[in-house]
Amino acid sequence: MPTARRRKSMPFVVVEMWEGRTVEQKRGLVRAITDAMIDHAGCKPDHLHVVIHETSRENWGRSGVLATDLVEKK
Amino acid sequence: MPTARRRKSMPFVVVEMWEGRTVEQKRGLVRAITDAMIDHAGCKPDHLHVVIHETSRENWGRSGVLATDLVEKK
Amino acid sequence: MPTARRRKSMPFVVVEMWEGRTVEQKRGLVRAITDAMIDHAGCKPDHLHVVIHETSRENWGRSGVLATDLVEKK
Amino acid sequence: MPTARRRKSMPFVVVEMWEGRTVEQKRGLVRAITDAMIDHAGCKPDHLHVVIHETSRENWGRSGVLATDLVEKK
Amino acid sequence: MPTARRRKSMPFVVVEMWEGRTVEQKRGLVRAITDAMIDHAGCKPDHLHVVIHETSRENWGRSGVLATDLVEKK
Amino acid sequence: MPTARRRKSMPFVVVEMWEGRTVEQKRGLVRAITDAMIDHAGCKPDHLHVVIHETSRENWGRSGVLATDLVEKK
Repeated sequence: MPTARRRKSMPFVVVEMWEGRTVEQKRGLVRAITDAMIDHAGCKPDHLHVVIHETSRENWGRSGVLATDLVEKK
Repeated sequence: MPTARRRKSMPFVVVEMWEGRTVEQKRGLVRAITDAMIDHAGCKPDHLHVVIHETSRENWGRSGVLATDLVEKK
Repeated sequence: MPTARRRKSMPFVVVEMWEGRTVEQKRGLVRAITDAMIDHAGCKPDHLHVVIHETSRENWGRSGVLATDLVEKK
Repeated sequence: MPTARRRKSMPFVVVEMWEGRTVEQKRGLVRAITDAMIDHAGCKPDHLHVVIHETSRENWGRSGVLATDLVEKK
Repeated sequence: MPTARRRKSMPFVVVEMWEGRTVEQKRGLVRAITDAMIDHAGCKPDHLHVVIHETSRENWGRSGVLATDLVEKK
Repeated sequence: MPTARRRKSMPFVVVEMWEGRTVEQKRGLVRAITDAMIDHAGCKPDHLHVVIHETSRENWGRSGVLATDLVEKK
């Protein structure tokens, strides 16, 4: 049954962002993204993984400029 | 200043899931994940990207079994 | 307790490769990678996902040359 | 020293972008990114891979809006 | 010729898992995944890369719960 | 209009490589990859992100051998 199949869906989500969030923020983020996947993509929570890649500012560039330099310029 | 830094934050999110969602589902999903990032990770929406990788069932395995075979066995 | 923690371990694996493998090859690959994770990283199969990203030759470069061109030159 | 460099030398690069570039564009892109890695990260080209993930507009959101909708609004 | 093409095949594999494996475990894991790619996907080992992303438990969520909290609850 | 669409293009690039580059090298790398995307893929710099994943040698295998061991063997 198509519906049954859809329910088995088991995605994972990778968040790439700067380091520095608290555990409390991550806790809320993981819960909210999981809810988003359940509400809008028909996922079941059981096999749903969310992984956060925390990247330092010196490893992130935008518009050709390191984030470190963006902060320093401010 | 923390506030200034938080404003510059510019993450992206990659969703790996089976193919088959409608555009309407994706529309809702992208909006909800973006809201999660704003609410819980202090992001500004402007530079926030969400990318969906849709994978066919024959390219996804769990517990050592292709998703295609999980469906066939049912 | 280490054993208890090891049991909860729930990784996923992404394989990036050229398109063109048969379902039978993928079936064997997913099983073998899962076994590798169980044998060498102490994982339990239940939450272990393997995702295959099949990429066309025109989207893959090595040594600065598109794979399409490598094949054509042969 | 070449030996020293070779030790440092095997990165890969993943480009996530919208679908629609020509093979000629990809050819130039792969070459230019490879040159960037050689010039600035001390890589040797031999084991340097560049993979392009082409994503359709309906699988890409920015600021909470699908790229499909951005185009339609224009 | 299929054989010729297969020889040029040059994939890479990314393993996302919790931090905490020993070097010995990683050594065995990398060897076993490489063997899996050779045996089942027709790859040659020369250009085959395996990268391990070690993620801390506070950056990994399942079923909407941080892995840190899962461990604490135990 | 193709031109209009091209302007909206907003890719991101992930570089996976061994740890150990200086900030100066990363600065140059981010700028050069951004230029490559502008010159060859018709991107505008504004929404172009480059993220560097620095991986330790004990988390990188080639040809089935950990990079740590390659260095030791030398």
